[in-house]
Amino acid sequence: MIYLYLVIEFHNPMRKIFRSDQVTRRDFVGGSLSALGIASVFPASGRTQAFTSAGPQSLTVGEIIDTILKNIPVDPLRETVDTLKAGTPDMVCTGIVSTMFATVEVIRKTILLKSNFIIAHEPTFYNHLDETGWLEGDKVYEFKKNLLNQNNIAVWRFHDYIHRHQPDGVRMGVLTKLGWESYYDANSPRIVTLPATPLKYLISHVKNKLGISKVRYIGDQSQLCRRIALMPGASGGRSHIQLIQEERPDVLICGEVAEWETSEYIRDTRSMGTPRSLIVLGHAQSEEPGMDWVVPWLQPKVPGIKVTHIASDNPFSFS
Amino acid sequence: MIYLYLVIEFHNPMRKIFRSDQVTRRDFVGGSLSALGIASVFPASGRTQAFTSAGPQSLTVGEIIDTILKNIPVDPLRETVDTLKAGTPDMVCTGIVSTMFATVEVIRKTILLKSNFIIAHEPTFYNHLDETGWLEGDKVYEFKKNLLNQNNIAVWRFHDYIHRHQPDGVRMGVLTKLGWESYYDANSPRIVTLPATPLKYLISHVKNKLGISKVRYIGDQSQLCRRIALMPGASGGRSHIQLIQEERPDVLICGEVAEWETSEYIRDTRSMGTPRSLIVLGHAQSEEPGMDWVVPWLQPKVPGIKVTHIASDNPFSFS
Repeated sequence: MIYLYLVIEFHNPMRKIFRSDQVTRRDFVGGSLSALGIASVFPASGRTQAFTSAGPQSLTVGEIIDTILKNIPVDPLRETVDTLKAGTPDMVCTGIVSTMFATVEVIRKTILLKSNFIIAHEPTFYNHLDETGWLEGDKVYEFKKNLLNQNNIAVWRFHDYIHRHQPDGVRMGVLTKLGWESYYDANSPRIVTLPATPLKYLISHVKNKLGISKVRYIGDQSQLCRRIALMPGASGGRSHIQLIQEERPDVLICGEVAEWETSEYIRDTRSMGTPRSLIVLGHAQSEEPGMDWVVPWLQPKVPGIKVTHIASDNPFSFS
Repeated sequence: MIYLYLVIEFHNPMRKIFRSDQVTRRDFVGGSLSALGIASVFPASGRTQAFTSAGPQSLTVGEIIDTILKNIPVDPLRETVDTLKAGTPDMVCTGIVSTMFATVEVIRKTILLKSNFIIAHEPTFYNHLDETGWLEGDKVYEFKKNLLNQNNIAVWRFHDYIHRHQPDGVRMGVLTKLGWESYYDANSPRIVTLPATPLKYLISHVKNKLGISKVRYIGDQSQLCRRIALMPGASGGRSHIQLIQEERPDVLICGEVAEWETSEYIRDTRSMGTPRSLIVLGHAQSEEPGMDWVVPWLQPKVPGIKVTHIASDNPFSFS
């Protein structure tokens, strides 16, 4: 059984950088990010009275988001999943945690750190758009929402924009963790060209460097790999296959596949005699280094606020 | 990175049971299946002259599809992925192969069997709708298309209709293979209630019975499981979560998940103290018994034509 999925573009003008029900500040000027320009969305004077005792170095959640967006050299996205999932822009930030998934465990660790702002790469509520209407009354959703609300934790998703940073912040985090940052080529950013390495050693290398216990792969462990296509996350079968068409890599390393797409394409590729392989790392661990990359990138931009990376880790065991 | 997916309904009236470019028979009466009624789509008199030497017991691909659809007690679907992916309805069938994926290997085995009609549960060309425009010129696509065309192999997808058979043919195949057919409850078909079984033994059982070398799971191996939610294939996070809301199972066994959906929901479920587990079998092997179920179901309906199941197997290794 497969449900029918269609890739659609992010061009619904009704979607704003913040959901309107989350923008509660009385003096918030309103309007879309693209109409106002990023810099004017959260003026420093706008924080609520309740938080002004936090001192002159304090920043609100909205000001931190503004700071991040000002440092991403793209026009504001008319539609994006990078919205607040909990909390409000006027909350004064007591500390930032970056992570892949704002799991219940990550939220608890954030509370212990006395931080109140989680920057997560992936959804909080189990679907890409973080739609919650269908989850009303669901015990897990209600538990997580209450945990966030009762502890005044804000969650913002940093997905579309971090991938649009030049270079892609997730990619640079992963390359650095793999020890491959010197192989980065801005003209062909998704390809790493290595000295010839047997697939077996390539698998060992990525597991060791990324702290992964087990990967799924398709290929011959003795195959020599030079051209590596690196696609952390789950960018979809069509994007994987189009990259392969363009770059003819020896191996594609990705985070996640739909099993009727990329893996079947690689299986048929090998059956026709072309020695092309696939390594599937697991989604969370394939991009977690990107959220570690956020710490040294963001820390100098928010003086006085501690930025901590907490890995949300792989949820799966193997048996 | 996640691409945005939306679940949409199968209600585009432009999609027919056969792609129009595949209906080449001169006397084919034309029109949609729902307008004509299934029985009239492929009258027995319609086979092409070239194939009439196959004898009085012969059936065309179109007649076999008609026979299958007549035995599924639902109104014709206005939109379906159950279309011909290769070949034409007027080809006289020399033998049927049922499988999960019409891989290059399965096609080669079909040729060796001197069969010419593959009935596959999942896509042939690496996307759910088997759209091929974006694959024109792709070496793997062209190789597979030529292999099919040069050997006069027809491929038809049997997905939406087999799941609508009463009971669902894939489900019954999987239950039978698991030795759980006596637990089937038509009032709650997705739930199996077993004697209390530790998760560890449940995992061993499904691996042994389905011939799976390794599964991914989330849970405590000592957890006692009674209520099993069984969802072969990849029906999507929302359907998994809604089933859990309705049925409160101890464990969900499914074929495939999107890793930002079901697995994160289960991870948070466990963090709030609810002992609910997840076993992810792998898509191909989770539904392959359904295509084995096709053989005894279809064979009596097509006398004189050999029906053979060929497992397409799991493409992945683990390291």
